[in-house]
Amino acid sequence: MTGTGTIADAPGVQLARGVCRAFAARGLSTLCEFTLKNGRRADVVALDGAGELAIVEVKSSLADYRSDGKWWEYLDYCDRFYFAVPADFPRDILPSDCGLMVTDAYHAEILRPAPLAKLNAARRRAMLLRFAQVAGQRLTRLTDPEALIS
Amino acid sequence: MTGTGTIADAPGVQLARGVCRAFAARGLSTLCEFTLKNGRRADVVALDGAGELAIVEVKSSLADYRSDGKWWEYLDYCDRFYFAVPADFPRDILPSDCGLMVTDAYHAEILRPAPLAKLNAARRRAMLLRFAQVAGQRLTRLTDPEALIS
Repeated sequence: MTGTGTIADAPGVQLARGVCRAFAARGLSTLCEFTLKNGRRADVVALDGAGELAIVEVKSSLADYRSDGKWWEYLDYCDRFYFAVPADFPRDILPSDCGLMVTDAYHAEILRPAPLAKLNAARRRAMLLRFAQVAGQRLTRLTDPEALIS
Repeated sequence: MTGTGTIADAPGVQLARGVCRAFAARGLSTLCEFTLKNGRRADVVALDGAGELAIVEVKSSLADYRSDGKWWEYLDYCDRFYFAVPADFPRDILPSDCGLMVTDAYHAEILRPAPLAKLNAARRRAMLLRFAQVAGQRLTRLTDPEALIS
């Protein structure tokens, strides 16, 4: 990134957008940069009409993947977990028991569906509530920013 | 409203904004124009950090109140129900067993707290899920409108 780049130019943000578009096309709602109760920040969380939750970890490069080994800390907060990587990523090194998406700034494709590991009811309720609150607050920040200035 | 007025100029929309600001100041997330499963459209739905849901019906005038008598159809979809009216509304005519807010375009005040009538778990879960989905979709429509064009 150059000195004039913005956060939206960052490769991870662009790739996450493609992931969100792929989910939106299937009718799911998505949030980016979603902080979990354990303090980890999920790149993308997607919610379907039945309340099922997917987390997607975007890795823009091998260096990006190697710099953060703690992806399993996301597993307790979703029903399905995916890695999403660009087309030139050496995807053979990714764990084969996770879902896999290939993504760019405009769309994404699921190469390997994530296995289902169902959340328990209490955790799902907590995640739904947090998703609803965060989405509502971000919406208010865009539509009536003065509402959040106290 | 004149011919050049927009939806955002409508008195009900302005008054709903004041209601949303009052909830935002207390840390609640809000959505306006939220369609319930029974087809009714709630003016404001507010969600707190414990998952409690309030519905607010905004009445800009006596004529507005009289033209829609079916407010009790909201009661099955919230833990607390409020009417919100402007300061010059004849509020003695409102049912005394509902919550009451006085609102303008900028803020609102609770004059009478709504009694708590707790939702059952299944209905609360359905409402949380719908709130999360609607908020997420509206956010996407604002941040990446192309995501929703298929």
